[in-house]
Amino acid sequence: MILRVAQVIMVALAPTLVAASDPPRTMSELLAHSTTADWRRLDPANTLYLQLDTGRVIIELAPEFAPRHVANIRALTHEHFYDGLAVERVQDNFVVQWGDPTQRRPVGTAARTLPAEFTQPVGPSLPFTRLPDADGYAPSVGFTLGLPAARDASGTTTWLVHCYGALGVGRDNDADSGGGTELYVVIGHAPRQLDRNATVVGRVVSGMELLATLPRGTGPLGFYERPQQGAVIRSVRLAADLPAPERTTIEVLRTDTPLFARLVAARRNRTDDWYKVPAGYIDLCNVPLPVRISAPSPSG
Amino acid sequence: MILRVAQVIMVALAPTLVAASDPPRTMSELLAHSTTADWRRLDPANTLYLQLDTGRVIIELAPEFAPRHVANIRALTHEHFYDGLAVERVQDNFVVQWGDPTQRRPVGTAARTLPAEFTQPVGPSLPFTRLPDADGYAPSVGFTLGLPAARDASGTTTWLVHCYGALGVGRDNDADSGGGTELYVVIGHAPRQLDRNATVVGRVVSGMELLATLPRGTGPLGFYERPQQGAVIRSVRLAADLPAPERTTIEVLRTDTPLFARLVAARRNRTDDWYKVPAGYIDLCNVPLPVRISAPSPSG
Repeated sequence: MILRVAQVIMVALAPTLVAASDPPRTMSELLAHSTTADWRRLDPANTLYLQLDTGRVIIELAPEFAPRHVANIRALTHEHFYDGLAVERVQDNFVVQWGDPTQRRPVGTAARTLPAEFTQPVGPSLPFTRLPDADGYAPSVGFTLGLPAARDASGTTTWLVHCYGALGVGRDNDADSGGGTELYVVIGHAPRQLDRNATVVGRVVSGMELLATLPRGTGPLGFYERPQQGAVIRSVRLAADLPAPERTTIEVLRTDTPLFARLVAARRNRTDDWYKVPAGYIDLCNVPLPVRISAPSPSG
Repeated sequence: MILRVAQVIMVALAPTLVAASDPPRTMSELLAHSTTADWRRLDPANTLYLQLDTGRVIIELAPEFAPRHVANIRALTHEHFYDGLAVERVQDNFVVQWGDPTQRRPVGTAARTLPAEFTQPVGPSLPFTRLPDADGYAPSVGFTLGLPAARDASGTTTWLVHCYGALGVGRDNDADSGGGTELYVVIGHAPRQLDRNATVVGRVVSGMELLATLPRGTGPLGFYERPQQGAVIRSVRLAADLPAPERTTIEVLRTDTPLFARLVAARRNRTDDWYKVPAGYIDLCNVPLPVRISAPSPSG
C-alpha cells in the first residue's frame, strides 16, 4: 500500500507525521483543526436528492440567487415531475443534462417557463467573501453563502459561477424559455462562458461521481442517440419532505471564516513536500468546498 | 428530435440555416471553412494507443517539451511494460492514473527514473502563439505545437499546461523520482497548481471519454481499494509500430493559423443566438482543440 501511494501526484501527509508544534499547512490538516462553527448543515428545504440506480446525488439549491426558479423546481419536485425521466445528454468535459424530451409531461402547479434569473442585485442577503485572485471572466469573484459567485465592477450585480458541479437551468434561445424542466450539471472544466447566460440554481455537494461517470452521448452536443441509453432518474425529492431517517446529514465548510481563508491560502501556495513551485494563484473553480457526511441515510 | 435539442444550453446552428453571405461565427461554421492546411496529421512516432476493453485512447506525445521522458515512455512501450497493468486511481475532478503498483515490474532497456523535465528553455523548436487573454497562473499562455503552453515573464522558459486531457508523469516527493512508469491524465477542472511541478509529456486527443467515465476510486486520493477494480490496460503501442491498417488516421487543428485565431475569437465572444452576454475572455483550457478522424482503424 505504501508503494502504491508512493508515486502519486499529490501527497497528503498524515496528521501523525506532523509535529504538534507545526502549523497546519495542508487542507486535511486544516480540516482536522476545524470546529463545528466552521461548518454549516444543509437546509433540508433547499436540499434535493436526485436518486439514480447507482446512488443519491445531493444538491444544494440557492434560492437567494434564483428565487423563482428554485421555487419552481421545488414545485416540479412536489409534482414528481422528474421521477422516471432519464438523462438525455452527457457531453464530455461539459455537462450532464436531464429533462423531458417530449416537453409534454404535465407540470401541474409549476410553471413551464419563467423570466431568466441570470443575475441578482446585490443586497444584504447576498454577502460576499472576495477571493483576492484576479479572474478573467468577472471583475471580482469569491463566495456567497458557500457558493462560487461573481460580481460586476460596480458591485451592484452578482451571479453564481459555472464551476464543476454547478446546477443550471436549460433553456431555448429565448432567455426566458427555461423554468427547470431541463436541468444540467457541469462535469468538466468550468464553462465560464455560460455565466450570466443561464440561471444557476445551486450546486451538487455529494455524488458528483455518479453524474461524471455516466456514458457520454454520441449524438450532436452529447445527446444520446436512443433515449433508453440514459440513466433513469428514479426520483427527485426535497430532503425536507422525507422522514428524518431517510435524510443524509451533510455539512459543507463555511466560506466566510478565518479557517476557510487559511485553506484557500494553503491551496494557493502548496507547502507540502510534493510541490516544488507554489502557484501563487488560485482559480475560483479550483478552491475546494469540503463536505462531510455525518449520518448517511441507509439508502444513500 | 427537434424538441429534444430545443432546450439545450449550447445551440450549434446547422450550416444550412446560415445564409451564404454570412461570415462564419461558430466553431462548426469555421471548421466547415477550414482547408487541409489548417490541420496537421499526428506523427505516428509520437502517437500512443492506450487500449482499454472499451476502446482506444489516442495520445499525442510532446518530445520537444520532455525529450528524455518521451524517449523513455517509447522505450517502456517497446518493452510492453504497460501491457496488462491496470488503472490504479481515478480521483473525481482530478486525474486518472495508471502504473505498476508493485514498482517491481522490469523496465528492461528503459529507465525507472529520470531528471525532471518540468520546464524547457525557449528555442526555435518551441514556437509560441500567444493567447491575448490574461492568465492567473502564468505571465503568458498560448499554444506551442498545438498544445496549451505557458511562458515565464522573460520569455526564456516554457512548459505544458495541465488542461483537461493533459498527460503527466507521476512521481514521488523527489522531483527526479518519476520516469514514466506511472502516468496520469487530467479528467477535471484544470489543476494548474501542478504546472511546473510535474513533467507533462503530451495530451489525449481522442478517447478522453473512456478515461473520464472510469469508476472513481474510493480510497485516499481516489486510489482503488482493491487493485482488481481498475480497468485493465490491454496494451500500449506506438502508432509507428503498428501496420498501417491498424492505425487511426487522425488530424488535429493547427493552432498557429488565421483560422485558429478566428476560432478563438468566436469562442471568446459567442455570437450564436443562444448567448446573451459575450464573455469577452477565454481561459486557455477552454479553447477547443478540434480533432478529426479520417480513417478509424477497424479495432479503434
